[in-house]
Amino acid sequence: MTDEIVGADAVPSDLFTAFEDYERAILANDLDTLDAMFAPGPDTMRGDAAGLLIGHDAISAFRGVRGGVAAREIERIEYRPLAAGAALLVSVSRYLDGGTGLQTQLWQRGTDGAWRITAAHVTPRAQALDRAIWRTVGDPLWQGAWEGPLAGLTVAVKDLFAIKGYRIGAGNPKFLDWARPETTSAAAVSDLLLGGASLRGIARTDEFAYSIAGDNVHYGTPPNGALPGALPGGSSSGPASAVATGQAEIGLATDTAGSVRVPASYQGLWGLRTTHGLVPRQGMLPLAQSFDTIGWLTRGGETLQAVVDWCLSFDGSDSTESVYGASGSDLPWRFLIPQEVLDAVEPETRDAFDALLVRLAASDDPPSLARVSIGDLDEFLEPFRVVQGAEAWRNNGEWLRDHPGAVGPAVAERFRIASAVTAEQEASARSELEPLRERMQHLVAGATLLLPTVPGPAPMRTHGGERVDAVRQATLRMTTPAAVGGLPALSVPLLTVESQLGPAPVGVCLIGRSGADISLVRAGRRLARLVDPREAP
Amino acid sequence: MTDEIVGADAVPSDLFTAFEDYERAILANDLDTLDAMFAPGPDTMRGDAAGLLIGHDAISAFRGVRGGVAAREIERIEYRPLAAGAALLVSVSRYLDGGTGLQTQLWQRGTDGAWRITAAHVTPRAQALDRAIWRTVGDPLWQGAWEGPLAGLTVAVKDLFAIKGYRIGAGNPKFLDWARPETTSAAAVSDLLLGGASLRGIARTDEFAYSIAGDNVHYGTPPNGALPGALPGGSSSGPASAVATGQAEIGLATDTAGSVRVPASYQGLWGLRTTHGLVPRQGMLPLAQSFDTIGWLTRGGETLQAVVDWCLSFDGSDSTESVYGASGSDLPWRFLIPQEVLDAVEPETRDAFDALLVRLAASDDPPSLARVSIGDLDEFLEPFRVVQGAEAWRNNGEWLRDHPGAVGPAVAERFRIASAVTAEQEASARSELEPLRERMQHLVAGATLLLPTVPGPAPMRTHGGERVDAVRQATLRMTTPAAVGGLPALSVPLLTVESQLGPAPVGVCLIGRSGADISLVRAGRRLARLVDPREAP
Repeated sequence: MTDEIVGADAVPSDLFTAFEDYERAILANDLDTLDAMFAPGPDTMRGDAAGLLIGHDAISAFRGVRGGVAAREIERIEYRPLAAGAALLVSVSRYLDGGTGLQTQLWQRGTDGAWRITAAHVTPRAQALDRAIWRTVGDPLWQGAWEGPLAGLTVAVKDLFAIKGYRIGAGNPKFLDWARPETTSAAAVSDLLLGGASLRGIARTDEFAYSIAGDNVHYGTPPNGALPGALPGGSSSGPASAVATGQAEIGLATDTAGSVRVPASYQGLWGLRTTHGLVPRQGMLPLAQSFDTIGWLTRGGETLQAVVDWCLSFDGSDSTESVYGASGSDLPWRFLIPQEVLDAVEPETRDAFDALLVRLAASDDPPSLARVSIGDLDEFLEPFRVVQGAEAWRNNGEWLRDHPGAVGPAVAERFRIASAVTAEQEASARSELEPLRERMQHLVAGATLLLPTVPGPAPMRTHGGERVDAVRQATLRMTTPAAVGGLPALSVPLLTVESQLGPAPVGVCLIGRSGADISLVRAGRRLARLVDPREAP
Repeated sequence: MTDEIVGADAVPSDLFTAFEDYERAILANDLDTLDAMFAPGPDTMRGDAAGLLIGHDAISAFRGVRGGVAAREIERIEYRPLAAGAALLVSVSRYLDGGTGLQTQLWQRGTDGAWRITAAHVTPRAQALDRAIWRTVGDPLWQGAWEGPLAGLTVAVKDLFAIKGYRIGAGNPKFLDWARPETTSAAAVSDLLLGGASLRGIARTDEFAYSIAGDNVHYGTPPNGALPGALPGGSSSGPASAVATGQAEIGLATDTAGSVRVPASYQGLWGLRTTHGLVPRQGMLPLAQSFDTIGWLTRGGETLQAVVDWCLSFDGSDSTESVYGASGSDLPWRFLIPQEVLDAVEPETRDAFDALLVRLAASDDPPSLARVSIGDLDEFLEPFRVVQGAEAWRNNGEWLRDHPGAVGPAVAERFRIASAVTAEQEASARSELEPLRERMQHLVAGATLLLPTVPGPAPMRTHGGERVDAVRQATLRMTTPAAVGGLPALSVPLLTVESQLGPAPVGVCLIGRSGADISLVRAGRRLARLVDPREAP
């Protein structure tokens, strides 16, 4: 190896041996050796395009989910001695099947005399696209109108929407292969194009949108743009990651049980689930029609406001309210906090939310804040699941039966349970949902519900099935009431909660009355301005 | 600024001031300050996804062509003191319009007491795609046959070929906007798909393929995958960069005057210009039909062999020869070195080429090598240019007249000259070309021409117009004889020549008889094995 690497001769032999051991461990994905060769303690760092991990344990956890690297050879190494027992090694790697990578490593000798890495910065070879986030991208993929309120903005379209000439993939390669090219774009797509936005690309979804984790087994887990090493949230994982990492300005997504709100909360984005039925769903692959809605993800409230002003009104103003009989005015500056949700969230999230309420109350624009009971959260979740399952199976069961083994294990298990829902169970669940829907609509008649969007920060990607299932369960209990009510729900990134991976965003959710979507975004921005004056008025 | 950056308090104030000064200079693209803040001398380093630049001057030259960075704020900074006057700063930047970046900087105090950067590793925010290389990419963009000799390989298609459902952009945004979606894929595209290759995406070209530099003014200059900071070569710049950086295995390209061979040489790739007329050109936007050919770019000879075996024969064997009347056997192991070309190349390239000849002669499979005169190179270039110009104008003149100002200055000037070619000049040039074509065909009747592909390594991107024009002129004198002869020409990355930017690849070109394309690739691999035994037999 030595004699082929340009610059290797300059490296002291003990350090070069350590470097070679480390490179060998990387190629073998030998996690124990890699762990041992990174210095222990909270100061060790590792950074790449996904972000900076600080502390040996965070780096170690990340490795567990990364998988190995492709076969490569070190082509060149630059050695810069810095002090006794400290040196910088910068190396260029050449991948056997093309491309080069770059590694900067700070090596320091420990008290035991061994060289260990205390800081690393890694650039792997270039990829044409990040296939965990995207299925197809273009510059643009589809040009929007040259003028309009959304001109210059780019859209990541969840792979559930029809785009003329492209197939719908639904997060599953066999489904993509089976699908035919669409002849007409979905209404929700055309609306954005007519407003001047362009399509950046088709972004990944959890399979058939039937998950909220964002860990598609076929294409990989998209990066969390706010919290390196954490799950992105789903099922709108691709649009959310695209927006959070700055690769698009607008995510066009869907929310049945929380698929816009969960990734918004996990990645520090604004995310709106629209009133059920408000945005036409033609050209959108259904999961469960009784609850399916269209939504958008953005980095800031101003962009979201531009989107809803354009897409939800005929003239860019708040005219949709009149369609639903409500007045065109803003929502009352009055919020109700559902006690059962606060009881259900993680303690750190509750503390952060309580602190937010104190801050809002003490602001110079204090809203009216009151606690309210919305009832046992499981009362919502259980019948919701039954009806969702029955509809999901009606939509997808035939295809799934024709393609055994096509779907990943977690989603397959969900469909298996869905397939067993009987007509009686469905009818009974529907009648249970009716009073709950009325309860929710009654609650928001004169106020807006205010709650943490999800129980806590995005879980680490390393968490196994059981932990993910528990988080999923706890999350759905919080996100289904809005879905049951058919109400618009907006997640605003207003909380920061300490997590295992560092400070993490958590969203605050506003649930408003039917058709008040535009006003809901306005209310969210008014709240955000009290927390961060930089949020544009 | 200080109080908003996590970790800033830990940084000594003089170092933090230097860090802030540097960040300010980056945002202002203040090249003088940036130069001054990088330590002088040959050991200073700067690396990113495009590669590692070593030495203050190489870094400085790179900055001149990079342009500024987007507006961003430092969000977090990690300080690690290493010795008196040496510290590592790792900082996370947040771009105002989305995304985060990462900078690792080694700062050292100079003898004058000032802190300067001696090593930097930079990761800018993620991009959905590299728009200098690609127009559109997919995972895949188009799935090929599931079985076949090219299964698993991905193709970067130069934006001159029809792909069903996509428009041809020809490297020009106004042309792309004007074009209609294609209803049938080009034969050259379908051939690869039928062989099992998939399309990775549509890759950039110089405008209308009328350039060999690779510096498209509309979409930016693709990176040189072998020599950071150098021009990629054109006009097949996008496919070449995609293949050289490992983002695709096969570049589907065109070569009129050298558009496959020049980027192949500049980026250390294998590149074949096929016999004129051998590969059907249906669905390919023409530049100059008398010389237009289809070609392929690959990283290794084995892949290129697989491509030609599939695309140029009916059964994967060397059957095309019989179509042209030649025998099916390999070309004679006999090479002629055109003296006029050696006189025209840069001294370092000539030395490297001469050393290669010595090595081949001393190998255990020595070919017959002899010098030959092919005549004054300008005799080829001048009439070639006239006919190329006349045809280019016939193909594109009407569109260019209808779209004034649509094309960048260098290409526009070329078309302006082309528009002035008279019918008499064209007829006269055609009759001049006839004996030259015969001369070339006679030369390769019993041997293969062997020559450096281009005068020298890829020029630095910083070189201005005059220098690029001089290189262009010198290069075309070397690449047009094969085009005039209609002969297949293969560039093989066999030379390494020291350049301003470090060791750089230069190709060796084999020019064979008409229709002997498959055998030419075989001969190239036989030569390559004598130089590098790793080249698979």
